[in-house]
Amino acid sequence: MRINIIGPGKVGKSLYNCFLEKNIEVTLIDKNYDYSKDILKGIVLITTQDENIINIWNNLKNYNISNINAVGHCSGYLDSSFFGDIPHFSMHPNFPFSSVVNCNMIKGITWGIEGNKEGIEIAKKLVTILEGKYVIIPQNKKKLYHLAAVISSNFSYALIKMSKDIYKYMEINDIEHLINLSIKSLENIKEKGLKNALTGPVARNDLKIIKEEEFEFEKFFGNKIVYDFFIDTLYKIKEGENEHKKNIENEK
Amino acid sequence: MRINIIGPGKVGKSLYNCFLEKNIEVTLIDKNYDYSKDILKGIVLITTQDENIINIWNNLKNYNISNINAVGHCSGYLDSSFFGDIPHFSMHPNFPFSSVVNCNMIKGITWGIEGNKEGIEIAKKLVTILEGKYVIIPQNKKKLYHLAAVISSNFSYALIKMSKDIYKYMEINDIEHLINLSIKSLENIKEKGLKNALTGPVARNDLKIIKEEEFEFEKFFGNKIVYDFFIDTLYKIKEGENEHKKNIENEK
Repeated sequence: MRINIIGPGKVGKSLYNCFLEKNIEVTLIDKNYDYSKDILKGIVLITTQDENIINIWNNLKNYNISNINAVGHCSGYLDSSFFGDIPHFSMHPNFPFSSVVNCNMIKGITWGIEGNKEGIEIAKKLVTILEGKYVIIPQNKKKLYHLAAVISSNFSYALIKMSKDIYKYMEINDIEHLINLSIKSLENIKEKGLKNALTGPVARNDLKIIKEEEFEFEKFFGNKIVYDFFIDTLYKIKEGENEHKKNIENEK
Repeated sequence: MRINIIGPGKVGKSLYNCFLEKNIEVTLIDKNYDYSKDILKGIVLITTQDENIINIWNNLKNYNISNINAVGHCSGYLDSSFFGDIPHFSMHPNFPFSSVVNCNMIKGITWGIEGNKEGIEIAKKLVTILEGKYVIIPQNKKKLYHLAAVISSNFSYALIKMSKDIYKYMEINDIEHLINLSIKSLENIKEKGLKNALTGPVARNDLKIIKEEEFEFEKFFGNKIVYDFFIDTLYKIKEGENEHKKNIENEK
């Protein structure tokens, strides 16, 4: 197997190092590469920013691509249907690459993969080499899939920013315990499931506190719609799984 | 030191076990306790639900309280000013007590404490016994302090619920990797700070994806206000610290 990674950014470099470590023949390609001279062979994996992926493929097609077995990219947002008839795939890491990381750090992560039949098989092989897991995404739901990752990852940053701003207003600078609180809460979900992990005013159905903190939220952040949406979502956790339990009990 | 914990719930039992383990003289009191017979001595710590705390104190005052050195509670939301002239405090664990936990699990957590002068000193001592850390909260900002904990902890559950609903729609049941993605993102904040940890469309200023996912969000969750609020908050992370950097560069 020979892999050509186009795009020497955080993801590209990390994967390059990782494939090297696994003794895979791999090349890391930047924009100075001469496609007319060094004809690409094997698998092509495009790891550039999303907006450049289609352009790179359109450019590549001007050269000899007859030795390319499959082409894929690592965007979470784009699917791979635009590659056309050639075996194609996308493989998106559910991992926040905020820097180049070593191979061990991405071991065990889950990749969202899609593609045509041959492409998906290639993607599975690459994920296996990287010692990862995968979920197969419906090709026409790639945007929604990516939105779920944005909500889980990026929106968590926003929650910490919001708490941090409240603490700043109280003239407290250290917020590490709030990040730890959030991590511990998430670990509880893994251990007990959403409903059983839930704590706080909604879990206790403490309407007085919920109402008064809505007022605090509105004063501080200038709206209560966001707060209400979250409280409503927490009630869905509380009630949804209660209902489920109720159904099970009825069956007894 | 003698501690009386009123309220044998998750927090009360956990603290009771923990003080016992530290060889502190401690009593766990439930509603059948006869305050007229067994007069309370030492420190009283009320660990019931928020709505019962003031009632419990009002009831206690019908009995002999001359041997009580200080009284406190564990609510995150109430302050302790209603206790009046007696040394008083509140000490709120930034920890999701979704069950009774052992002493080791709350070692190192941060307690939000407030009270009058003598009360704060007592709270510090108790936190020290429990091997915790503390932040001192302005007494009149207790609600806002609690809101920060709700945002960090409870709202994280809501984000996972939202991602889970998206995955359910895509007929994918396993979402553990999304929880791991969220945990990893939070660990990155601890390591690198908010700005440097930020990944995703806002970090790359990818306006096309941000706009298209707003549309997906609105279709799925029935509003775009929540999405816009979060994107706006992420831009505050991105730009706030950029500006700071710009200022530093100007100073050179």
